[in-house]
Amino acid sequence: MFNKRTKIKDLLSGEKTGQEVTVMGWVRTFRNNQFIAINDGSTNNNIQIVIELGLIDDATSKRITTGASLKVSGKLIESLGKGQKVEIKATSLEILGDSDAEKYPLQPKKHSLEFLREKAHLRFRTNTFGAIFRIRHALAFAVHQFFNDRGFVYLHTPILTASDAEGAGEMFQVTTLPLNNAPTKADGTIDFSQDFFGKATNLTVSGQLEGELGAMAFSDIYTFGPTFRAENSNTARHLAEFWMIEPEMAFYDLEDNRNLAEEFIKYLIGYAMKHNMEDLEFLDTRLKEEENSLPQDKRSEMNLIEKLEFVLNNSFEHITYTEAIDILLASPAYKKKKFKYDVQWGIDLQSEHERYLVEKHFKKPVIVTDYPKDIKAFYMRQNDDGKTVAAMDILAPGIGEIVGGSQREERLDKLENRMKEMDIPSEEMSWYLDTRRFGTVPHAGFGLGFERMVLFVTGMTNIRDVIPFARTPKNCEF
Amino acid sequence: MFNKRTKIKDLLSGEKTGQEVTVMGWVRTFRNNQFIAINDGSTNNNIQIVIELGLIDDATSKRITTGASLKVSGKLIESLGKGQKVEIKATSLEILGDSDAEKYPLQPKKHSLEFLREKAHLRFRTNTFGAIFRIRHALAFAVHQFFNDRGFVYLHTPILTASDAEGAGEMFQVTTLPLNNAPTKADGTIDFSQDFFGKATNLTVSGQLEGELGAMAFSDIYTFGPTFRAENSNTARHLAEFWMIEPEMAFYDLEDNRNLAEEFIKYLIGYAMKHNMEDLEFLDTRLKEEENSLPQDKRSEMNLIEKLEFVLNNSFEHITYTEAIDILLASPAYKKKKFKYDVQWGIDLQSEHERYLVEKHFKKPVIVTDYPKDIKAFYMRQNDDGKTVAAMDILAPGIGEIVGGSQREERLDKLENRMKEMDIPSEEMSWYLDTRRFGTVPHAGFGLGFERMVLFVTGMTNIRDVIPFARTPKNCEF
Repeated sequence: MFNKRTKIKDLLSGEKTGQEVTVMGWVRTFRNNQFIAINDGSTNNNIQIVIELGLIDDATSKRITTGASLKVSGKLIESLGKGQKVEIKATSLEILGDSDAEKYPLQPKKHSLEFLREKAHLRFRTNTFGAIFRIRHALAFAVHQFFNDRGFVYLHTPILTASDAEGAGEMFQVTTLPLNNAPTKADGTIDFSQDFFGKATNLTVSGQLEGELGAMAFSDIYTFGPTFRAENSNTARHLAEFWMIEPEMAFYDLEDNRNLAEEFIKYLIGYAMKHNMEDLEFLDTRLKEEENSLPQDKRSEMNLIEKLEFVLNNSFEHITYTEAIDILLASPAYKKKKFKYDVQWGIDLQSEHERYLVEKHFKKPVIVTDYPKDIKAFYMRQNDDGKTVAAMDILAPGIGEIVGGSQREERLDKLENRMKEMDIPSEEMSWYLDTRRFGTVPHAGFGLGFERMVLFVTGMTNIRDVIPFARTPKNCEF
Repeated sequence: MFNKRTKIKDLLSGEKTGQEVTVMGWVRTFRNNQFIAINDGSTNNNIQIVIELGLIDDATSKRITTGASLKVSGKLIESLGKGQKVEIKATSLEILGDSDAEKYPLQPKKHSLEFLREKAHLRFRTNTFGAIFRIRHALAFAVHQFFNDRGFVYLHTPILTASDAEGAGEMFQVTTLPLNNAPTKADGTIDFSQDFFGKATNLTVSGQLEGELGAMAFSDIYTFGPTFRAENSNTARHLAEFWMIEPEMAFYDLEDNRNLAEEFIKYLIGYAMKHNMEDLEFLDTRLKEEENSLPQDKRSEMNLIEKLEFVLNNSFEHITYTEAIDILLASPAYKKKKFKYDVQWGIDLQSEHERYLVEKHFKKPVIVTDYPKDIKAFYMRQNDDGKTVAAMDILAPGIGEIVGGSQREERLDKLENRMKEMDIPSEEMSWYLDTRRFGTVPHAGFGLGFERMVLFVTGMTNIRDVIPFARTPKNCEF
């Protein structure tokens, strides 16, 4: 057994003061040949090791560089210095692994986020990314806890799929055929019968359709898994591979769906505030420092923690799409022609419109419902007006769309008609239509983009900084 | 709001007896024009609805068929009949969705597992699959709880990867190039610079290498995500897409690793026994009935729940690979030439050998460590004997290998030499080697095949029955 150590998070709680302890971790700084700050990733905070004269020789001392790994034993004592409550007075020190100061890319200074994206395999070792990925972990755990507490069944919907009916975006093809010599049929098209699955397959863009199958048996299910878009979007909000949470509930209408989504988002925020305050405070300070270099009018009105508290303590605004259009048309921004894209009933709301509603008009998260049917998917429930569907999007300040969902069309005839109108082949979707043929029920669901939620909670602005290894056009490193 | 109902699991707890309640769910049976058994997936048990004469007309009565969905309100009362503690005396009944008895594939009789695999979109509605997928959910939640409680960070390692260095199996290619007209370079090979990521990409076979990057910052991480093998294996134990859990721990040696894996498996079993006993009892009974049709000597020595309790209450056996070979060579099975594959030091243990060790010799889970280096991956830590590596496999009764892991080679020179011996290009793996260059530490990890764990806990025998929608050669339905 090697692992007889105490994690730094536990040491810093102070409960072991006065005891002999062993700590293992990586050197962050070493000053005055006497004070080592060690971090093991269990918390953003380091523990200070005090080395008394003569404990280690000069050769060892020189090897205590940023990034080197150490095993240190000693007594945990109350610290006399400022900045920490406890420290370890070392009685033994062993260097587990060196870190050549000339070559180690992470120097004890501030690195740009861009630089660290190139060093994504090492950036976990920085304060910023340590905080982000501990928060990401906490949010992921909170997702499971929220649904488990409410009796939802976690359903692993498939990643590989032959279904391309939803049309939610461009898809990645998956194949075992030789790319430079794929077998073809007489008509020149690819002979997928020779492919691994005997048909053309893609990476999933959504687990919703399969999720509905689960909801028709378990009442409430959720998915939480990777989803894919082969869109050539090089923006701070798009990834080719991202994680999505998709709950699907039988016996839910759009109002039930809205309420659950709001409760869910608030639960996640509340969970992070309860369990990750140290990391949030670090990011809060980081953000303030970043904004100090901006002109006054570009700075956020609220700091990170204030923003989270505000969202937690206020109801989300609910408006219909039609109301949203009216607000936009009546807005000073519209009248002064500040929108790049025109506003009229029937348009897909653009980012600038969403931001206006959320950041200028309501200054809080907004749930927009009942969109025109022509800009939404075939499976959304048709409203009685013949023009709109029971869709909902939740828009968050600084992020834009964070949730998209709807009540589903549970009426077989209406669903089939809509599929016909939209040229969606119903034979291939027979399994999906079976849910409407046999014991159909009102049901609803939504998708939450996990990385957008992490962006919101961490206050980061580029989605590549909240997923361990980002996949974007021309970028598939590590 | 539509969803003002109480879930059947809560109704059956009896706390609401005497109150007016609303239940929604699907009809399982309807007998004597009076008693409806409804299920909503929250539990394997149905609630009985009592319809008094005159409450509904004949036309409605005829629509109460297996699979139809109902909304029923009434008073929850103590049941006079046998088989249930409480029942609902209906005061109103609404049919939400019909289910044509002539066409509904699930009749109120026993269907074969093979038939239900073809109807995977509906099989969640059966008792057997209801139980299996509630247990699968509970095990997934327990995975997260186990690691969260121990301070592990859940790391979403990438699904799309350009790394093919591990050689863990055949991979699925992912591309956006046109398959019947992929661009080629002058030498006739595919020009991947035009592909989405600008290089050849595949679906991951393991998140371990990226997981190690996380462990070198957070100490303890785990992954839990889909993994892929494009192997043409049509067996009851293989899937092309399956979920895997891969913890990776800094400052761990092989013994720490073994201990954690054993603790983890026992935690999962204990969690299911605590939270899913009804479902386990159902599957236990199901298994007994299945085995009743077998000759005495083919039946299991223990029933399902006895088996789980046994594993929970006994230490796993630990032997080295060398000891395993000795046991096999000394076995009656070997002497009577009952093994199909020969036994000698250096072989990869075959399924028949593993089963002998686990099911005949030790009759409990066995951890085999220190395998010959030539049959194991490049990253495993080289033992001092020059012949073996610090690998471990955990073998479970009825399942075979359920965990594979190792202490990792943390010494840069030894790792590089081994990569050279095995022709693994180290330039492409520079990011991985950086963990050994900068602050390397002893570390270890393992992978648990989640479906194999679900198989073990549910007592099912075909892996296609424990994942919602199985992906196997020539099969990518739903």
